Amino acid sequence: MAPPEDNAGEAAEEEGSSIPEVAPAPSPAKAPACGGDGRRVSTVLIIIAMQTEALPLVNKFQLSEDTDGSLFPKGVPWVRYHGKYKELDINLVWPGKDSVLGVDSVGTVSASLVTYASVQALKPDLIINAGTAGGFKAKGACVGDVYLASDVAFHDRRIPIPVGKLSTGDSLDMSPQDEAAILANDATIKDMEGAAVSYVAGLLSVPAIFVKAVTDIVDGEKPTPEEFLQNLIAVTAALDQAVSQVIDFLSGKCLSEL
Amino acid sequence: MAPPEDNAGEAAEEEGSSIPEVAPAPSPAKAPACGGDGRRVSTVLIIIAMQTEALPLVNKFQLSEDTDGSLFPKGVPWVRYHGKYKELDINLVWPGKDSVLGVDSVGTVSASLVTYASVQALKPDLIINAGTAGGFKAKGACVGDVYLASDVAFHDRRIPIPVGKLSTGDSLDMSPQDEAAILANDATIKDMEGAAVSYVAGLLSVPAIFVKAVTDIVDGEKPTPEEFLQNLIAVTAALDQAVSQVIDFLSGKCLSEL
Repeated sequence: MAPPEDNAGEAAEEEGSSIPEVAPAPSPAKAPACGGDGRRVSTVLIIIAMQTEALPLVNKFQLSEDTDGSLFPKGVPWVRYHGKYKELDINLVWPGKDSVLGVDSVGTVSASLVTYASVQALKPDLIINAGTAGGFKAKGACVGDVYLASDVAFHDRRIPIPVGKLSTGDSLDMSPQDEAAILANDATIKDMEGAAVSYVAGLLSVPAIFVKAVTDIVDGEKPTPEEFLQNLIAVTAALDQAVSQVIDFLSGKCLSEL
Repeated sequence: MAPPEDNAGEAAEEEGSSIPEVAPAPSPAKAPACGGDGRRVSTVLIIIAMQTEALPLVNKFQLSEDTDGSLFPKGVPWVRYHGKYKELDINLVWPGKDSVLGVDSVGTVSASLVTYASVQALKPDLIINAGTAGGFKAKGACVGDVYLASDVAFHDRRIPIPVGKLSTGDSLDMSPQDEAAILANDATIKDMEGAAVSYVAGLLSVPAIFVKAVTDIVDGEKPTPEEFLQNLIAVTAALDQAVSQVIDFLSGKCLSEL
């Protein structure tokens, strides 16, 4: 069930300054031609709701922040980081801080808007929505577990991350009505952005992968906000590790192989 | 409290085919120069979630459907109708039917996406989000009432439509938790799009007006889905009447006068 990496605490302490190791780039090889639609995964769009979740990946992949502000409309707080890693053009977009509330722009509306605007501007081959999530112990989830939810098939399942059904809503807490709907969805994890990103990805015909790390147990005893904040930094390190695995897996792959 | 117009039933029966009368266009006059930012309201964007709500206005203002599909990305179901009325370029955008479920694309995600994409493409001076809503009898709302909710000031209040606070969520029904939040918002009306349109309008600095007609009493005895469907057609006629009033009011106005 993908427990937190041993170095989770260490990586978290280094957040914002370190460049944790990633797998070395393979020497260029003659890649076989792609079947299916013939395209290789080239441009990847990573959508992340919270700055705390985003910055370790920005550092790990040595991404640069856009400073000319030409990608998105004037005045929006959305931030794009980008760079080259192995054979991939990586774009990480974070919707920024809410101008009124001063907090991360979490939730489905911001997630759908930045996904839409980023797909229009960047024409990615694949979207990765990465973030923290609540987990259901009734489905076996533990704090620090990382799950993959995917609307693409991954026939070969060579990414060693368990797959769980994701249910999305605009609240960190859960009303009894929400709980009934989530149980009906047979969900193992609960987040605030995934379904919105999936909706836009479907609308614009871009495949999407969801990588979600469990910060709190939804059907557990502890109050969710406390448990979430207590585990956020450590779990973010596990999340980043998993996203790196996914990125390493994708490099050099054909879309038809996913 | 704006009871349903006497001809509501008649107009509803004619829906889809009639062109109900609107106030005649005034003879061209020398309009005084605009103060403030010096701009006159020219391009209006009307966002409407349901086809049943949209078509009477399409007919009333004799709007034409875009058929070249160049305004929005390929594959999205969003529909734009446009035309000239008095001094205004009117654009009405409806998010279309969900390709999987075959129903109107209601809710905050679709509303925010079409608002964003339409503002980017059309650069409107003003957004009007019109639609049906639930009303709270504890706040005096009755079925057929039309309310104005606005994030612009309307100092002079010459539009004879009562003003009510609007609360938005992604469900037609209401959980006890939702009810507590809506009461905390001091809302008179409850819809599924307004706050999302308002959020995008704020993000992109476009003033917005909300015109909402009450199809069901949220804190009443009848089950909401039944009451909603029972009243939808008749109430839509009252909604269209109110939107026409707003459009007539806006024609020739300066942004600084709102």
